[in-house]
Amino acid sequence: MNFLTKATLVIGMSTAIIASAALADGHAKENPAVAARQHQMQMIGYSIGILGAVAKGEMEYDAAMVSGAASNLATLASMDRATLWIEGTEQGAVDGSRAKAEIWSDPDGFAEKFSALGDAATALVGAADAAAVGAGMGSLGGACKACHETYRGPKN
Amino acid sequence: MNFLTKATLVIGMSTAIIASAALADGHAKENPAVAARQHQMQMIGYSIGILGAVAKGEMEYDAAMVSGAASNLATLASMDRATLWIEGTEQGAVDGSRAKAEIWSDPDGFAEKFSALGDAATALVGAADAAAVGAGMGSLGGACKACHETYRGPKN
Repeated sequence: MNFLTKATLVIGMSTAIIASAALADGHAKENPAVAARQHQMQMIGYSIGILGAVAKGEMEYDAAMVSGAASNLATLASMDRATLWIEGTEQGAVDGSRAKAEIWSDPDGFAEKFSALGDAATALVGAADAAAVGAGMGSLGGACKACHETYRGPKN
Repeated sequence: MNFLTKATLVIGMSTAIIASAALADGHAKENPAVAARQHQMQMIGYSIGILGAVAKGEMEYDAAMVSGAASNLATLASMDRATLWIEGTEQGAVDGSRAKAEIWSDPDGFAEKFSALGDAATALVGAADAAAVGAGMGSLGGACKACHETYRGPKN
């Protein structure tokens, strides 16, 4: 699918969807694919936040919460990117995006970053205590940082 | 884990996470688990929106987009609920929630609704054209409605 078709596809999304995404987030001008990616990132951040809070002793260790957060993180990292990282939605092309052009020029590299996040998350499924969670936080944070450094642009 | 512990756990989440969730969504008083669920629902709505737009001819059929939306929908429906549907975050207990108490009193029934959504979504992976997508929209919409009718409370 070429750029024009992708762009048309995004622009052509039903007004109801665009409006609901905009209203829910207070991002009135936001592209729906960008909004969807931000929802994904928020959920990733939420899961990492739980793991980080357990690791730091701010939240009581609970096996179901830790494994749930880790498995959801792996699930989020595994999501199909076709509907989320749509061509023509890079930073500068649409409001709110911080996606660098490298996401589309180097899709394999981008996929590897998500794969590394998924691996780091999966390693924490079944972590037996707060110390075990803490031992995996470096890999998790490193996976976030490695992707952001290469594929995320500066703040808008 | 009893209610008090769950509640403490939510209240005890790191201020940074709570603040980032609140700032990102403009829901200043929102519970982080409620915000995370709303991100999940927004992503579900985004995926269904793509499928619906293809079914209605508002968006050009594209195999990667259709299968991506369907598989992401199945993925979202399969997410671990331990970190999302935390006890003490029902409607009335925390701001922004529309979760009915039945989610916690009937977890198996609630799980079945997500399972039905996942099945309806999986059936659309590989849908060969817009008509095939359209043929599956009834099941998808029915799965949404069945869950909302039983487990979602009125608008806040």
